[in-house]
Amino acid sequence: MEQLTIDTGKVTDYLCTFLWDELQRAGKRAFVVGLSGGLDSVTATYLAVRAVGKEHVVAIVMPYRTRSASSTKDARRVAETLGIQSVVVDISPMVDSYFKRFPEADKIRRGNAMARARMIVLYDQSVVYDALVLGTGNKTERLLGYTTIWGDMACAASPLGDLYKTQVRQLARSLGVPASIIKKPPSADLWAGQTDEGELGFAYADVDRLLHHMIDEGCDEQKLRTMGFSGDFIERVRQRIDATEFKRRMPRIARLPDA
Amino acid sequence: MEQLTIDTGKVTDYLCTFLWDELQRAGKRAFVVGLSGGLDSVTATYLAVRAVGKEHVVAIVMPYRTRSASSTKDARRVAETLGIQSVVVDISPMVDSYFKRFPEADKIRRGNAMARARMIVLYDQSVVYDALVLGTGNKTERLLGYTTIWGDMACAASPLGDLYKTQVRQLARSLGVPASIIKKPPSADLWAGQTDEGELGFAYADVDRLLHHMIDEGCDEQKLRTMGFSGDFIERVRQRIDATEFKRRMPRIARLPDA
Repeated sequence: MEQLTIDTGKVTDYLCTFLWDELQRAGKRAFVVGLSGGLDSVTATYLAVRAVGKEHVVAIVMPYRTRSASSTKDARRVAETLGIQSVVVDISPMVDSYFKRFPEADKIRRGNAMARARMIVLYDQSVVYDALVLGTGNKTERLLGYTTIWGDMACAASPLGDLYKTQVRQLARSLGVPASIIKKPPSADLWAGQTDEGELGFAYADVDRLLHHMIDEGCDEQKLRTMGFSGDFIERVRQRIDATEFKRRMPRIARLPDA
Repeated sequence: MEQLTIDTGKVTDYLCTFLWDELQRAGKRAFVVGLSGGLDSVTATYLAVRAVGKEHVVAIVMPYRTRSASSTKDARRVAETLGIQSVVVDISPMVDSYFKRFPEADKIRRGNAMARARMIVLYDQSVVYDALVLGTGNKTERLLGYTTIWGDMACAASPLGDLYKTQVRQLARSLGVPASIIKKPPSADLWAGQTDEGELGFAYADVDRLLHHMIDEGCDEQKLRTMGFSGDFIERVRQRIDATEFKRRMPRIARLPDA
């Protein structure tokens, strides 16, 4: 795991400078952040407060009715601890009023609509607070495409997007994020009992190590096998990366040869 | 204007190949398109039908309660003429249930939420129809940032994204789009009386010519002035392009030097 160990002090300095610069360049007053109470959004919020000050960060807490009440409680407690303003907006009416028309929709469709409804709220609230939308995604979920396109991936600036999940955890510890939040099983919390690792079918500790060797170091399959990764695991991860490429780029535009 | 004259036959062939390829590559059955009844969405729909066949295009018509009924009627008539399936989904409940909480929201905030609610519906319906979301944006609005980020710009494939508005009109004529639709004053139709040219403050015929010289040919201000464009016009357009750069790229990710 040592390859994934980060110098948390250096990384914090770097990311704080990034966030400060983004805010200055955009000429905005604040960041709004969708604070779920999970590790990523809490860590991003801690970083933003350190970067630009608590008066310039507004937490938007966006529960859906089936969401565990403890998440919302965690989110509000984080906002209180940091001394930042928080606004709770229940997204249930937006989401439910749409699916009333399509009651057969499964939990994946509903989960995606929730992630996108949260984007609507965040971008709308960014106008109210003269703010940029702070991203909370990490590198693991970005590479695996474990995100909703135009939903949770939508933001102005993403401080954690180049950190694997296990690295976000290291950073969180050094920033003083409460242990209770660091220890929670990662979950998109879109339905009861959902956990990232259960849904993905592998552990972050393993996939982060694989992604590091595969993507950052460019190791081929043979090399990866000698490192102890199974062919099946390598294949499953590579397929996920390929199949979700569309989530990491802008829409494909037909470029005319000479229009 | 002759620089902006396109060979509509060649362009149609090219764009149909593009759309066919995109569908094959994605392994999807159809395109879903948000059909408003305006020039761009109608033209994109005509193209898609020509490219992949009417059985493989589904029109999603998404009125909001303040929207002119004639737009919805135009959209449905186009679907009938083309013989494609159409589904009407009223987005008012989604949008209104959110703004009940924020009644002070102005028309810009409401318009952006509408564009994003339509994205939610389109992406959700793309699951139902095993489809790709067809983009309907043109090059003029893309360069001017006259779009809602994560709203109407969100799609899988954009056939018209490299055509200026005046070129879309040429293409529409050659594809047999009804004259009544070609002649309508372009409008995002987000509030009563809204027209693109009224809101932008200049005419498409002028700005398309300016953008062509400025962007495609890379002419500097002095050259543009000798062509007859006023300094004020050049400046206003350049500012719009610069100020909306964030709408044409993915979120900015903090890239760590050596995490």
